[in-house]
Amino acid sequence: MSVTAAQGFTAAGIAAGIKENGNPDLALVVNNGPRLHAAAVFTSNRVKAAPVLWSQQVARGGAVSAVVLNSGGANACTGPEGFQDTHATAEKVADVLGHSAGEVAVCSTGLIGVRLPMDKLLPGVEKAAAELSPYGGEKAAIAIKTTDTTHKTAVVHGQGWAVGGMAKGAGMLAPGLATMLVVLTTDADVEAAGLDKALRDATRTTFDRIDSDGCMSTNDTVLLMASGASQVAPEYEEFADAVREVCADLARQLIGDAEGASKDIRIEVINAASEQDAVEVGRSIARNNLLKCAVHGEDPNWGRVLSAIGTTDAAFEPDGLNVAINGVWVCRRGAVGDDRELVDMRYREVRITADLGAGTDSAVIWANDLTADYVHENSAYSS
Amino acid sequence: MSVTAAQGFTAAGIAAGIKENGNPDLALVVNNGPRLHAAAVFTSNRVKAAPVLWSQQVARGGAVSAVVLNSGGANACTGPEGFQDTHATAEKVADVLGHSAGEVAVCSTGLIGVRLPMDKLLPGVEKAAAELSPYGGEKAAIAIKTTDTTHKTAVVHGQGWAVGGMAKGAGMLAPGLATMLVVLTTDADVEAAGLDKALRDATRTTFDRIDSDGCMSTNDTVLLMASGASQVAPEYEEFADAVREVCADLARQLIGDAEGASKDIRIEVINAASEQDAVEVGRSIARNNLLKCAVHGEDPNWGRVLSAIGTTDAAFEPDGLNVAINGVWVCRRGAVGDDRELVDMRYREVRITADLGAGTDSAVIWANDLTADYVHENSAYSS
Repeated sequence: MSVTAAQGFTAAGIAAGIKENGNPDLALVVNNGPRLHAAAVFTSNRVKAAPVLWSQQVARGGAVSAVVLNSGGANACTGPEGFQDTHATAEKVADVLGHSAGEVAVCSTGLIGVRLPMDKLLPGVEKAAAELSPYGGEKAAIAIKTTDTTHKTAVVHGQGWAVGGMAKGAGMLAPGLATMLVVLTTDADVEAAGLDKALRDATRTTFDRIDSDGCMSTNDTVLLMASGASQVAPEYEEFADAVREVCADLARQLIGDAEGASKDIRIEVINAASEQDAVEVGRSIARNNLLKCAVHGEDPNWGRVLSAIGTTDAAFEPDGLNVAINGVWVCRRGAVGDDRELVDMRYREVRITADLGAGTDSAVIWANDLTADYVHENSAYSS
Repeated sequence: MSVTAAQGFTAAGIAAGIKENGNPDLALVVNNGPRLHAAAVFTSNRVKAAPVLWSQQVARGGAVSAVVLNSGGANACTGPEGFQDTHATAEKVADVLGHSAGEVAVCSTGLIGVRLPMDKLLPGVEKAAAELSPYGGEKAAIAIKTTDTTHKTAVVHGQGWAVGGMAKGAGMLAPGLATMLVVLTTDADVEAAGLDKALRDATRTTFDRIDSDGCMSTNDTVLLMASGASQVAPEYEEFADAVREVCADLARQLIGDAEGASKDIRIEVINAASEQDAVEVGRSIARNNLLKCAVHGEDPNWGRVLSAIGTTDAAFEPDGLNVAINGVWVCRRGAVGDDRELVDMRYREVRITADLGAGTDSAVIWANDLTADYVHENSAYSS
């Protein structure tokens, strides 16, 4: 049900002809109210795509009536003309739906540095608007795919209300955020400030902690819209938990479908002096190409974990480090631990535990292995 | 001639049986004086191998009479026993040569987390000492290879004096330093303080600016020894230039032989507000896996360059960025520039120029592409 699991939302996903292969490439999600509350977080990359610059302005108002998303082109690094294209897209949506353009968010994904084919995109908006439906959530999720092999949706139900969402993203996945577009909807009656807090809390420990390939996108957007249609105003913690659960579910799906990956790596850093230390160490391990190759080769090469930890500023003593791979403590006190032959790495999920022995804080970062398929897919992307 | 190009040095390289395939794996370089001045720089990884911890102590004294280097095992993350192994190795060298162990540096390279076979290494020291020769530089350079396909040497001659060197390193190459062992020798009459300054100046802009795979080793060592045998005391600048030239030559050879690489990428960042900004941006580009894949695919994907620049804290405006690939300005003012079809990427060396438009400083970082061969080589390394 995706973004239409919550009452008050309609959605559509169609093929506008932006993708040359004729696959679906345009999605529209509309909030029919009664509330139009919204919050959003965006990429921290300083090179931001035109739709990000536009949607940041829209989200600042706390009200979003619709979001239009296209795959087949990122509209990033396209200059003032690219920004005009985004503006024209929002105006078109507003025109067709009878909304204000200032409340229409825009998201794009695909190749950087190429203008969007507006002669196809604008008629596509009309076509999508004509197909809007309270059952359109799946189609919308399908239309935002790029190199994704599956579409990603998630729903969590509260007492009389729900939070639903869809996500796309398969490469350029790194903290702060990933190459991803995520639209979350809820029919809970929550003001923009509450949405904003719940969304930031959720993304901080979910989307911000997946790191497929260390690359940060120009287009990331996570948008949460609330219709209030359930007429239920849940407690903040209950609502925030539901948002976090949907985000964690979608984040896990993104890692599970990352470009070329054959393993999903769950890196848990424990006994850190601070959560910040735990995250820094987790990210350093997640981005270590040599370790990612070793995991691909099902090689419990803990030396590469220690070498990655050693590049950080986190509090630890080298001879106080312990590392487990799939539950086997192959490194104890910074040196050889249990027999590495005991480690079974045949399954897709690989768990690395890094014990810093420096405190009581912890964090989990999700990553992928590095494979020849990743290289192949990304050497041929734009050609 | 490598480390024996300078007068006053003898060297040897032999097979001690540390490597199971019987290849040369032990090198010895001896300074026969009259001076024993030395300086060294080491990995900034906080997880340091036993030989690094030992050699840091030795170098602190400013005098090194010999250095023994082994491939076939890094002796990193091997606990107190590993440190004792290093100590025993230095004692053995001192014993055989009639030196003090406190002036014998030790370097190791190979797999992390495995003890060295001392029953082979110690007899190997005797064998190497017996083969010491003023013509042994090439053999020493060959004995320190790990996954290197060629041995690396360089020599620069001054007026009556010379600086020579050897290096090994093919993976885990990243700033601060790379996975590499480098031994430089000179017969110039230079005090330890002058050696130290010249070495730090040289490594800062050479070894510290190559980044093959973003991974920092536990064992990196660059050692410079001066015999004074030429009885010539060159001007500091002249000497420093020679050291820098040898380091730059060896650094370029390391990049040219990096594991699995098919392209050497020269990243020049220009018009930066500071040298630090230029280096930060250069490293961010150098470590971007998506860009490295694109270069492998001979795809002038400048969007990935901008996306990498955008993750830094350097001073720039997104619409003030220009990027050239092999001389074609494919990105101008943050948007589409000249026709990307004009870019010819058939040759091994690829030049990326990033113009930040924010100042007058610049820096060059060398990197490699990311290939299926890299993945293959590093998924099978320890198995």
